[in-house]
Amino acid sequence: MMNGFEEYAEVVLSELRNSLRAIDGTSAYELAKTIMNANSVFAIGVGRVFLSLQAFVKRLNHLGIAAHCVGSINEPALRSGDLLVVGSGSGESIIPVTIARKAKQLGAKIVHIGSNPHGSMHEFADIMVCIPVTTKLNLPGEIESRQIMTNLFDQSLWLFGDIICQMIADERCVDLNALWQFHANLE
Amino acid sequence: MMNGFEEYAEVVLSELRNSLRAIDGTSAYELAKTIMNANSVFAIGVGRVFLSLQAFVKRLNHLGIAAHCVGSINEPALRSGDLLVVGSGSGESIIPVTIARKAKQLGAKIVHIGSNPHGSMHEFADIMVCIPVTTKLNLPGEIESRQIMTNLFDQSLWLFGDIICQMIADERCVDLNALWQFHANLE
Amino acid sequence: MMNGFEEYAEVVLSELRNSLRAIDGTSAYELAKTIMNANSVFAIGVGRVFLSLQAFVKRLNHLGIAAHCVGSINEPALRSGDLLVVGSGSGESIIPVTIARKAKQLGAKIVHIGSNPHGSMHEFADIMVCIPVTTKLNLPGEIESRQIMTNLFDQSLWLFGDIICQMIADERCVDLNALWQFHANLE
Amino acid sequence: MMNGFEEYAEVVLSELRNSLRAIDGTSAYELAKTIMNANSVFAIGVGRVFLSLQAFVKRLNHLGIAAHCVGSINEPALRSGDLLVVGSGSGESIIPVTIARKAKQLGAKIVHIGSNPHGSMHEFADIMVCIPVTTKLNLPGEIESRQIMTNLFDQSLWLFGDIICQMIADERCVDLNALWQFHANLE
Repeated sequence: MMNGFEEYAEVVLSELRNSLRAIDGTSAYELAKTIMNANSVFAIGVGRVFLSLQAFVKRLNHLGIAAHCVGSINEPALRSGDLLVVGSGSGESIIPVTIARKAKQLGAKIVHIGSNPHGSMHEFADIMVCIPVTTKLNLPGEIESRQIMTNLFDQSLWLFGDIICQMIADERCVDLNALWQFHANLE
Repeated sequence: MMNGFEEYAEVVLSELRNSLRAIDGTSAYELAKTIMNANSVFAIGVGRVFLSLQAFVKRLNHLGIAAHCVGSINEPALRSGDLLVVGSGSGESIIPVTIARKAKQLGAKIVHIGSNPHGSMHEFADIMVCIPVTTKLNLPGEIESRQIMTNLFDQSLWLFGDIICQMIADERCVDLNALWQFHANLE
Repeated sequence: MMNGFEEYAEVVLSELRNSLRAIDGTSAYELAKTIMNANSVFAIGVGRVFLSLQAFVKRLNHLGIAAHCVGSINEPALRSGDLLVVGSGSGESIIPVTIARKAKQLGAKIVHIGSNPHGSMHEFADIMVCIPVTTKLNLPGEIESRQIMTNLFDQSLWLFGDIICQMIADERCVDLNALWQFHANLE
Repeated sequence: MMNGFEEYAEVVLSELRNSLRAIDGTSAYELAKTIMNANSVFAIGVGRVFLSLQAFVKRLNHLGIAAHCVGSINEPALRSGDLLVVGSGSGESIIPVTIARKAKQLGAKIVHIGSNPHGSMHEFADIMVCIPVTTKLNLPGEIESRQIMTNLFDQSLWLFGDIICQMIADERCVDLNALWQFHANLE
């Protein structure tokens, strides 16, 4: 017999409360500001982390911020003055690290959102936003999770992106009801 | 001056608590069972809703369940005995509704996860999981949100999918540490 | 024992010669002009047909034309004055037809590139570019193919898109060597 | 005034004849055999090259060969006995090279399809299929092109993949009319 939906929902909510509260609000504020000052924003990650970043990129575009997923069909050239957002819990995922190295050479600013401040991404990151949840690395101070694999990081990253968008909308006094005009309408 | 990260985090957490608690656990249980009994699972949605479903499909594969996103490169033919999971808050998104009609003709079972039980999806859905959050339709009883656009639905859907996977892993006595062997490793 | 690569290469080249020569150059010219006059270009198709259109959208962006794949992360709202390019051999693929209907309502111009001028797309298309290769419909005058499934249509569509881009580059006196500055560089 | 569609079509056809005829049929035969002997096939590339490989992966699946694009939602773990197909004209694209290094460590066989046999991919490739068309490297003996950027390579790669599938279908005596049962049908 399966455990109940309600029980697991409480686990998820409780873990998310711990992870979001453990994020340094100053780093979030710094990221929001950096995004608003960037010419264009690029994002890279792998797997479910990349899905969370894609949701972030979608909302940034609704807010009028030019944002692109690395590898997308209409990805432009990255230039000095652009920002690369890298999602990687361990800071070691090979594609994100490879792209970060390249973007750094091209003059972009790099943000790393992850759980491990000491991985390979440390070399490239101008800003590090730490979501200190469990990794396979057993870092000191990391928040334990009863969930499958990296679920807690993936979930936290999605929510974090949505909160950053909320902060930007707030700062820019965006009329949220007016945003639908920028939303895809072939749906 | 931007409102603080912490304040928005509490808004998101509080809204998610309301939305997850408003989901009928029986419908979640029924969905988990139906997935375990399906030959293959297909998923369709648009925009951020589809991203949440893609995260779900990814985890289902890790649990050994053959699951596909509609439109993916190695999407097989859908057959009788398969299950189509449709994510659509309004139940009116034209691509999901069109795909649901076709899948129904081909003999698949249809699950609709959405906020509106009375939309076009009602005609096709064998199971309806209601996440009763705000839509543009102002349905009675729906949970209000201070977040941007459909954020609360998109977030709830991601978390809902993760909980369903947890229930399935539980039922099948899956060793969570052993799951990494099924995870993509070219990362 | 497999037949030789060389033999199959000749089959492909010979069939492509027939299919490209059967395209009405006036419709190609009309499409190129329409693209240059559009505010933004959107493209939709399914399967390999959509892959060919994605290659087309990528090159249009390199030429400085705002072009988007329907369903992409940063897809904007379609407006009157925009152009939707639909790829569908049969003119009956349900997602493209559904999107075309919606785009027409929103005031976009519609181009159908396909093999069947008499299918459901006929109702929506302002311009029809016919690549008269074999379909499952056995239309009169269609070019036979010894290749797998719809290969000849998919291939012809890719080449057709590249030729349209060449015509646009020509018309605009684009310096082809300068185009690399618009090409994604995180590769 | 634009040059005519017909003129450009002849340029494309003539260049494709040169590039396909310059491919060593023995390497094509070796690749077809290697694919048939692999447990699973993975493919990686960037931009339009990746689009051509996605078309290839789609057809391989129709032929009953388990094939995956790196980065796809249901990508499994790569294991010893699997094959990685890398598309890269220059043999230097950073993501493909990074993935090839990782796949080699994991025990996979590597095929490089490209124009430059002397790039970074040389270190990892068990098989090299050379499509000797123009690169930005000005290699000796390469086929010149009047087309935009890497169009000739991208096109040749698509056609090459289709021919390999034809050779495999031939070897396995596949009934081409029966293949539609494996084709996605939610279209």
